Amino acid sequence: MKSNPYFNQLPDNYLFTEISARVRIFREQHPEAQLLNFGIGDVTQPLVPAVTDAMHAAVDDLTHRNSFRGYGPEDGYSFLKQAVIQNDYLPLGIQLHENEVFISDGAGSDLGNLSELFTADNRVAILNPAYPAYLDTCVMAGRAGTLLENQWSRIICLDCTADNNFIPELPAGQADIIYLCFPNNPTGTTLTRSQLQMWVDYALTHHSIIIFDGAYEAYISDKDVPHSIYEIPGAKEVAIEIRSYSKSAGFTGVRCGYTIVPEATGLRSMWMRRQCTKYNGTSYVAQRAAEATYTPLAKQQLAQQINYYKQGALLLRNGLEQLGYNAYGGINSPYVWVKTDTDSWTFFNRLLQQCQVVCTPGVGFGSEGDGYVRFSAFAGYDQCQLALQQIKQL
Amino acid sequence: MKSNPYFNQLPDNYLFTEISARVRIFREQHPEAQLLNFGIGDVTQPLVPAVTDAMHAAVDDLTHRNSFRGYGPEDGYSFLKQAVIQNDYLPLGIQLHENEVFISDGAGSDLGNLSELFTADNRVAILNPAYPAYLDTCVMAGRAGTLLENQWSRIICLDCTADNNFIPELPAGQADIIYLCFPNNPTGTTLTRSQLQMWVDYALTHHSIIIFDGAYEAYISDKDVPHSIYEIPGAKEVAIEIRSYSKSAGFTGVRCGYTIVPEATGLRSMWMRRQCTKYNGTSYVAQRAAEATYTPLAKQQLAQQINYYKQGALLLRNGLEQLGYNAYGGINSPYVWVKTDTDSWTFFNRLLQQCQVVCTPGVGFGSEGDGYVRFSAFAGYDQCQLALQQIKQL
Repeated sequence: MKSNPYFNQLPDNYLFTEISARVRIFREQHPEAQLLNFGIGDVTQPLVPAVTDAMHAAVDDLTHRNSFRGYGPEDGYSFLKQAVIQNDYLPLGIQLHENEVFISDGAGSDLGNLSELFTADNRVAILNPAYPAYLDTCVMAGRAGTLLENQWSRIICLDCTADNNFIPELPAGQADIIYLCFPNNPTGTTLTRSQLQMWVDYALTHHSIIIFDGAYEAYISDKDVPHSIYEIPGAKEVAIEIRSYSKSAGFTGVRCGYTIVPEATGLRSMWMRRQCTKYNGTSYVAQRAAEATYTPLAKQQLAQQINYYKQGALLLRNGLEQLGYNAYGGINSPYVWVKTDTDSWTFFNRLLQQCQVVCTPGVGFGSEGDGYVRFSAFAGYDQCQLALQQIKQL
Repeated sequence: MKSNPYFNQLPDNYLFTEISARVRIFREQHPEAQLLNFGIGDVTQPLVPAVTDAMHAAVDDLTHRNSFRGYGPEDGYSFLKQAVIQNDYLPLGIQLHENEVFISDGAGSDLGNLSELFTADNRVAILNPAYPAYLDTCVMAGRAGTLLENQWSRIICLDCTADNNFIPELPAGQADIIYLCFPNNPTGTTLTRSQLQMWVDYALTHHSIIIFDGAYEAYISDKDVPHSIYEIPGAKEVAIEIRSYSKSAGFTGVRCGYTIVPEATGLRSMWMRRQCTKYNGTSYVAQRAAEATYTPLAKQQLAQQINYYKQGALLLRNGLEQLGYNAYGGINSPYVWVKTDTDSWTFFNRLLQQCQVVCTPGVGFGSEGDGYVRFSAFAGYDQCQLALQQIKQL
């Protein structure tokens, strides 16, 4: 048996695993320390009552023979697909067919598995910095080429730095697959409609596919920031959009998300086939939970929750700026991206050791992330206040 | 963008999709008909109370800040891994380390995704007939070669027919990856310990990897049938074992299973990396549900449920034999495999039209399945009785 050689090309440690390891060592050395964790982008607020009520009801369904549900459709129940279309797309003027909506156990799975739809010789463009899974997935598929001086030979890096206001330039040459994530993780920055239109136009001209990670859509405040890439004319021909309930409704432990694969991309039936072969559908309880996020009561409860996180993000951004840091994001995003005066890991260590604050080293998201760290406001407003006090002493 | 060309090699219709389509047409033409469904292998009994109690408690955990759980470990919570080791393996004398146990949303995902660990040029051996996803996954990965006269050029077919008592012969040449499923879907037959030992020995000699689908383990009655491939000496070096709560505890809608990747296979860290990159862990509620299947009360309730299905299977097998059919399986398995006097789809249609009974055409599981149909006893004991009465009139 020959194992996939590309796995050996992956860097040794996955970013969040490495952070966990360092934090564990710190805790062992300082068992008394009260750590403030702004590291991993995980929510901390419990599910809202409107959602847990629906989950209890779903469990009850599974308790009785007449309401029991076994295997559901691999691409999700119609009740949830319709809720997605009616609530997330129609209000934006976007029409979708039910068969273009694929319910899944989360954005992470879809982002990874979509890779199977493409040959290994596609040229991929990835934001730098970016969520590590985009690149790692490409490496695993043999799509990244070789690593030379911090640069993969076949990956087109779309640099996002303070110098370009975190607005990446279009690739000079041919990019076949383009991973975009806006509002962005880790920088917390966004594109306006006209800026996103340039990417859709590029993809139309170059017959590229855009994999648009919209996990943070619920955090958008600015009016000129699109909530969906399908607000942009032409996007249905070139874009797959991935959404998650993880950050909009605290579903990181519930596991539900969805992916839109429009018919016009020519990839819809392939993705359906992939899911029918390698996926047996999303938990019924999770799908009922996701459906419940769209009730008026849940919308109210969730708006409060998101607002709570956003207030923390804004507090962090403003507070860090007052302390003299250049801070970005935090307005349409739960993430605040901060320029440091050292490399990322040095600042990470200093913050951990001296302030008991855990952040995410920017370099973990790509070479252009070095010299930055990410703060996740999912830690909660009170923790943001505490952290600022402790960072003040640095 | 270049899309994966191997998807085009897949046959047009997925087996269960085709069955659904034919059943839908029949229902439209005969709206008054009461169909008895022995087609898809989905359970029909509700979850047992011990499990739904645990699910309600898990939902409550997610309702309160102090007990809330966000992202869990990608490979599953320790509480469930320990329960698996203590209950499913230690009683068989099998020692496993927690990091060799990977909790997932189900066997279907793991079976499909494990394909990523191997290069495209591995030679694959697959039982014929077999669960279609093994082959389809290989086709998608470009591992099947070309299809000529019902035979894929690079797939080694392990024929299981009445002539060889459904005990496949070892491959004559080199098989790098071997998919085995015992108790078997669709034939319902099994291997004894000594028969399985031959496969482990083959794999040890040929440096092959066995992907052992043990989804139907809970249905084993015979003492000389192994419950785990790791009962066989040497298996830890050459076998990955996949298990599911779908058939043992009715979790087809809950979504939870697990895969054992022993360190000695050399693939454990690769699989961990795959899961950390492309999977965000299994639903907390599902993991608590799975944990609850191991309580004494749940074990009692589940044993009753499995027994109920098994009584149906035995009734079907004996009843069909009395009607003059050659019937197999149904003893260590919920499936009864029946020889027909025509090709599979003709018999399927006849059974649908004349008896209002839905079965699964054997040919959907591979060329050697033609001339057979599968009955799934998950339909329930009462349905099995009714079906026999209606088939009697054929």
